[in-house]
Amino acid sequence: MSQVVPSPLYAAIDLGSNSFHMLIVRHVNGSVQTMAKIKRKVRLAAGLDEQNTLSEEAMQRGWDCLCLFAERLQDIPEENIRIVGTATLRTATNASVFIQKANQILGYPIEVIPGTDEAAIIYKGVAHTSGGSGRRLVVDIGGASTELIIGEGFEANALTSLKMGCVTWLEKHFRDRQLTASNFIQAIEDAKAVTQPVLQQYQQLGWDVCVGASGTVQALQEIMLAQGMDEVITLAKLKRLQTQAMQANHLEELEIEGLTLERALVFPSGLSILIAIFELLGIESMTLAGGALREGLVYEMITELRQDNIRERTIKSIQSRYQIDAIYAREVANLASHLLQQCGGSEWIPEPQSGMLLRTAAQLHEIGLSIDFKTGGQHNAYLIQHSDLPGFTRAQRFYLGELTRRYRDTLTSLPEQHALSGTSGKRLLRLLRLAVLLSHRRDKQLVPEFIVTADEENLTLTIDQQWLANNPLTKAELEIEVHRQTDMGWPLKLIEK
Amino acid sequence: MSQVVPSPLYAAIDLGSNSFHMLIVRHVNGSVQTMAKIKRKVRLAAGLDEQNTLSEEAMQRGWDCLCLFAERLQDIPEENIRIVGTATLRTATNASVFIQKANQILGYPIEVIPGTDEAAIIYKGVAHTSGGSGRRLVVDIGGASTELIIGEGFEANALTSLKMGCVTWLEKHFRDRQLTASNFIQAIEDAKAVTQPVLQQYQQLGWDVCVGASGTVQALQEIMLAQGMDEVITLAKLKRLQTQAMQANHLEELEIEGLTLERALVFPSGLSILIAIFELLGIESMTLAGGALREGLVYEMITELRQDNIRERTIKSIQSRYQIDAIYAREVANLASHLLQQCGGSEWIPEPQSGMLLRTAAQLHEIGLSIDFKTGGQHNAYLIQHSDLPGFTRAQRFYLGELTRRYRDTLTSLPEQHALSGTSGKRLLRLLRLAVLLSHRRDKQLVPEFIVTADEENLTLTIDQQWLANNPLTKAELEIEVHRQTDMGWPLKLIEK
Repeated sequence: MSQVVPSPLYAAIDLGSNSFHMLIVRHVNGSVQTMAKIKRKVRLAAGLDEQNTLSEEAMQRGWDCLCLFAERLQDIPEENIRIVGTATLRTATNASVFIQKANQILGYPIEVIPGTDEAAIIYKGVAHTSGGSGRRLVVDIGGASTELIIGEGFEANALTSLKMGCVTWLEKHFRDRQLTASNFIQAIEDAKAVTQPVLQQYQQLGWDVCVGASGTVQALQEIMLAQGMDEVITLAKLKRLQTQAMQANHLEELEIEGLTLERALVFPSGLSILIAIFELLGIESMTLAGGALREGLVYEMITELRQDNIRERTIKSIQSRYQIDAIYAREVANLASHLLQQCGGSEWIPEPQSGMLLRTAAQLHEIGLSIDFKTGGQHNAYLIQHSDLPGFTRAQRFYLGELTRRYRDTLTSLPEQHALSGTSGKRLLRLLRLAVLLSHRRDKQLVPEFIVTADEENLTLTIDQQWLANNPLTKAELEIEVHRQTDMGWPLKLIEK
Repeated sequence: MSQVVPSPLYAAIDLGSNSFHMLIVRHVNGSVQTMAKIKRKVRLAAGLDEQNTLSEEAMQRGWDCLCLFAERLQDIPEENIRIVGTATLRTATNASVFIQKANQILGYPIEVIPGTDEAAIIYKGVAHTSGGSGRRLVVDIGGASTELIIGEGFEANALTSLKMGCVTWLEKHFRDRQLTASNFIQAIEDAKAVTQPVLQQYQQLGWDVCVGASGTVQALQEIMLAQGMDEVITLAKLKRLQTQAMQANHLEELEIEGLTLERALVFPSGLSILIAIFELLGIESMTLAGGALREGLVYEMITELRQDNIRERTIKSIQSRYQIDAIYAREVANLASHLLQQCGGSEWIPEPQSGMLLRTAAQLHEIGLSIDFKTGGQHNAYLIQHSDLPGFTRAQRFYLGELTRRYRDTLTSLPEQHALSGTSGKRLLRLLRLAVLLSHRRDKQLVPEFIVTADEENLTLTIDQQWLANNPLTKAELEIEVHRQTDMGWPLKLIEK
């Protein structure tokens, strides 16, 4: 048995304009595991007056919070700690008063980082926690600044930090706490004016996907989940939420299903900024990033995790954690890809991510066995759907869970999912099951030669008669599988030739 | 990242008198993981005539089944395969006819083992999968033989194989398939007569706990679960089931909630044998063993797993699998034990296993973090309650899951559980939470000096005032915990001195 040794802790502290956050993680076998999260809504930016002087009360709220953080920091090696201050501390004319005492309380130095550095770290946090290929636009709306980044892989091509945020926009445009159309219009127009200077540069660079970080986007995600919508943020949904918000006259009366009390205060201002950015840049859709500033700080410290294929790293880390046979898993994935190709590839399943999803399901379909054999499929779904899997969206995790829940035995129809069309989702499931069944002997030498053809929903599998006669267990299981798929209205024919 | 290499497979095949079973496992990091289970209800014993000649039909059923097993065996190293035949093959006068062809089909030799060898292997399977100390009586009712064993730890002191089983008793006493009182009485009396010769020896040796293996006891467990009873088998419950069974006149009409069709045929005969053994030996209660013959074969092959403290091995294996910080976990366990001691130990919580349960919960309370931080408690419960944890009974796993579900944050009352009394269960939870909270800094140097006293449900925790002033995060969390426990009607007082 391998010895269990504790791995070192890392702490990332972000003295934001809305909240102070402390994130404590461990680096375990290729993945980052959260050990503690402490957050206090300090709302530092609300303490800035018109001369950009930070009030004594706001500073005191900050120091009180840092006393709590300081206790927890004592046990973490100095080189594993990073503490950064952002927009409000960049802006406040008396920031040094705050920082001097804050440094004393923490016992470690605070770095007040420039806006472009903040944008660069946010991009790292996003790149390390979100999958997908192509050029990526990242939008992070903070308390007093908004970062826009365009990048590809781990490289950022454009880094911008704009001086607007959900706390400053609240104080500027919703000072009367009225959720009127005119307040929204002014907040949106002002945000567009602030963003205008970078418009041309960003349009020229262009992007394939757009991800959002920060509390505003997180709140949107929670609202959409609570209201049963899919996870993709669109301008139409944002506009609908604006209409819903305006039904409350006053901020204190705001009620939107899924919006938590702690996020409500800065929700309308954050929403205004997001609408402005969507409209000005012509964003079609946005998904939530897996991490941002704090995660970027963590990944900068843990050098082993730099530069890697995120999804591959996630799959390897999960395989290792649940101690599955990765060589066999790769063989099942290869067999599944081969089946997909024979069925016509993208002719049969058009979505470009389908091959990746099929291979991922094949590579993870045995993790549930680490809990129990009999109900392994159920455990696959539980582990995949509840784990943070950098590189996969929530909809993809849900679908992968449902695929691997059904990798063998009884077949039931898939629930509604948003990773693929219903037809494609079902077709991949059929291929996954066949790949698992055909490789059940766990040795690629023992997989029969086969021809599979697909004509819409009709699958035909042709295998040598003599091989089947010599392998009665596989034959019996294939015959059961023919019945299972056909009974679902998914015709499968086995031809012995 | 550590490389994931496939670990070798092992196969154990048991040609039983009722069913043939194949179990395929991997040895992963100190634990045995099931990879496949194949079972066919061959009912070999039903093919014996009065001259103990095995019928051609029964042999054919066996050979057909072995053709399926053979396919799967090809990929497993020869030294990792064991195939044993039991009672029917010991008895049948023409067994050699069956075995010769069976050897050809399998490609590996079958060992027909003597009854006492079978008993010894069963005992190993039980000892490796069941915890608890003291002397243990094991009862395994097979298709044509019943094994009785007394042992302690890994050593068996008495090994007996009796010539009765659920298939032979079905044919002998329920040949007319009538569930009449007279059939039951004769079956029970006959089983007592068969057991009588060993009565004195077993009574003299004595035992502290009794565990049952095999399908009959498994069926009883399923029935009790389905009917909402606890997991302990008693004579009263067996008698009640006999009454329920007699309400159906005919075996084919037998309906008992929780009894599956595949177990129904041999259930009345198995029940009769169990009642006879309970009455004759004066057994008070029995729990289900985690494994028996097949598991014994597996553990005999995997030499690294021989002789060990089962519970310690389980805890270490789980800690390693979920990569938790085992040093910290041990510190929390030590702190929890220290709290229990200060509260009066067994004066306050009388059940002898309470200290072990508290330490186990403390040692496993972070496994859920491997899935996700925010809902870590929920994942603890899921993993512990769904995993096979050798050394812990189902009731203990359930309770440990509920304890670790609540190790931090919101406190809710425990559901009904059968591992401890309700009062003791609650008291352990309070101590676990305090141990986790007091050690949240993850370094035993940073745990405050404290005095805890218990007066019935009133807990008082005294900590140095200065220490609390210097550690405001701990202080704030302790104050929240005071409210949480007190609000539950579990008074907790924090005294600063």
